[in-house]
Amino acid sequence: MRPWEANVRTVVPYVPGEQPKQKNIIKLNTNENPYPPTEGVTAALHQMDTDVLRKYPDPTSEVLVSAIADYYHLNNNQVFVGVGSDDVLAMCFLTFFNGTAPVLFPDITYSFYDVWADVFRIPYECQPLNAEFQIRKEDYYKRNGGVIFPNPNAPTGALLPLEDIEDIVAHNQDVIVIVDEAYIDFGGCSALPLIEKYENLLVVQTFSKSRALAGMRIGYAMGSKVLIKYLNDVKYSFNSYTMNQTALIAGVEAIKDDAYFHEITGKIMATREYVKQRLAELGFTFADSKANFLFVTHQDCLARDLFEALKKAKIIVRYFNKPRIDNYLRITIGTDEEMEELIKFLKNYLSAAKGAGASK
Amino acid sequence: MRPWEANVRTVVPYVPGEQPKQKNIIKLNTNENPYPPTEGVTAALHQMDTDVLRKYPDPTSEVLVSAIADYYHLNNNQVFVGVGSDDVLAMCFLTFFNGTAPVLFPDITYSFYDVWADVFRIPYECQPLNAEFQIRKEDYYKRNGGVIFPNPNAPTGALLPLEDIEDIVAHNQDVIVIVDEAYIDFGGCSALPLIEKYENLLVVQTFSKSRALAGMRIGYAMGSKVLIKYLNDVKYSFNSYTMNQTALIAGVEAIKDDAYFHEITGKIMATREYVKQRLAELGFTFADSKANFLFVTHQDCLARDLFEALKKAKIIVRYFNKPRIDNYLRITIGTDEEMEELIKFLKNYLSAAKGAGASK
Repeated sequence: MRPWEANVRTVVPYVPGEQPKQKNIIKLNTNENPYPPTEGVTAALHQMDTDVLRKYPDPTSEVLVSAIADYYHLNNNQVFVGVGSDDVLAMCFLTFFNGTAPVLFPDITYSFYDVWADVFRIPYECQPLNAEFQIRKEDYYKRNGGVIFPNPNAPTGALLPLEDIEDIVAHNQDVIVIVDEAYIDFGGCSALPLIEKYENLLVVQTFSKSRALAGMRIGYAMGSKVLIKYLNDVKYSFNSYTMNQTALIAGVEAIKDDAYFHEITGKIMATREYVKQRLAELGFTFADSKANFLFVTHQDCLARDLFEALKKAKIIVRYFNKPRIDNYLRITIGTDEEMEELIKFLKNYLSAAKGAGASK
Repeated sequence: MRPWEANVRTVVPYVPGEQPKQKNIIKLNTNENPYPPTEGVTAALHQMDTDVLRKYPDPTSEVLVSAIADYYHLNNNQVFVGVGSDDVLAMCFLTFFNGTAPVLFPDITYSFYDVWADVFRIPYECQPLNAEFQIRKEDYYKRNGGVIFPNPNAPTGALLPLEDIEDIVAHNQDVIVIVDEAYIDFGGCSALPLIEKYENLLVVQTFSKSRALAGMRIGYAMGSKVLIKYLNDVKYSFNSYTMNQTALIAGVEAIKDDAYFHEITGKIMATREYVKQRLAELGFTFADSKANFLFVTHQDCLARDLFEALKKAKIIVRYFNKPRIDNYLRITIGTDEEMEELIKFLKNYLSAAKGAGASK
């Protein structure tokens, strides 16, 4: 070890899903939207006055904050924006989980939570999902330094009903509770109305999934003005200008086009329900996902083998080599055409496997 | 205090320079480039395939990292990119200043350093500039947990010669030394060649000033592959996808157009030298700035009064209400026309002040 390495913060970094560079693949591994962003985004970028790029963006991101606040009938001081919901959540961990009691989150959940806790040296304690991969609300009633969970949960897709969320918040009014709603727009019921009742509740959402803008990096948090103020204070102590000029204008256009938003999320939900039926027919089992992905397992084949076989066929899904979920695959809902390709492959794969098994 | 506030990280946030929304002002307060970015940036954005926005950007930012590495004749694993040099520097503080000995930086310097140290609970000790606002290299030879300083320094504009920088690095081979070169392209000599000799040296630069892209938020660090690896590990533990698709393509175009880069930085340096002459004639004194700003004082008028008078005349400069520098103004170098307006105003203001003084 070099002497200067003594001062280095060493971490086990998060490994994001592959972003393969080759073409002609069916990419179902990072829960992106299969449809392009609204034409308003294209028009705004293609016509933008690029002279503004020489100047710093508005540090308050007012145009985007206002657009989000208007959309959800909030005041501007109830909205915080960041470079994707990962940036927003990292800021939340840094700002709100600064105590000594452990922060609570599920054992099977968004794999960034323990990474943020580790990098910021935050104590935490994972609460196991039950055998059906559901959050047990009672696990979150114990003493803690904060609570965070996704709803729908990732990578399971399982949705917690609003009354259970309120129970968790009601039992935790002395800490900050964060509901990470990255996938809420695909049929879930948001906890947003509860922010008027609970000053300690923060709801985090993103433009990456339902608004087809993963590439622009826009996430946001909504909560009481006192929470948003604390979050902004830390953000301004980290980087004053996080949202670049293009993210600001693209974000505004994306949130303005509500018809398109409903059109594409509606299509994705319809595709998801169709794929559920077909996969069930093929013998796959899965939680009843309300997200834009399914988390599936099959008793006749190993997830890891299937993952590799799919990859060879240029269909990329997500495999997590982790306890309890190492025989599952997370499959993003793509277009109908992409999902038909997937189903066709799975059908052939399973009958070949069965044939091979029978011939043994 | 609400019970949940016990877990909140409270900070005194950095206050960025004003980004006024009204038109027809002369904005000389945040060291932006007065010229637009290269036409290549405009073309890339106006013609971009916006379908890519539905997908996450490449987490390694390879196209941009490669373009920067090629430009400086480095390998890709010697370059780290972030959302402006503020993001890069924040990541550096988090990654490299994780010891118990105090980090050293000048007392008069970029005002974000103590903010980052505070937010990450990093001990630090400021080293006073001498009476001529110069860094004394010997102040950095004591035991410490890391060293950081801008070169040219901000807000003074004073440049430290390369041999003094090497002396500081050579005396500090057991810690990380960061040279923050946000303003190096306006006539300074970069410490970059030293990274081949010192594995513990990191050089940080930005597209915000010399490349006229403050609005895109692109900063970068260059150093040994082991430093870059540590930085990337922490970055991936914070936010995997920091650079959005537009920043990647705009950054590549900006670094490709070297002729335009030299044209605009050359114009700014020429304007700066002219303005130095004119301000000296008017009785202003200042360090010999090698940046795109001047840090000036005048014995006959208070900086604060002048700041307010300029503001009324729609000329915005930067005033810092801080010890030792509260009678100085930092004035960004704008276009020749903008600087003529400034000089005309200052001439009238000073003669009016003199007249008022004489009539007393």
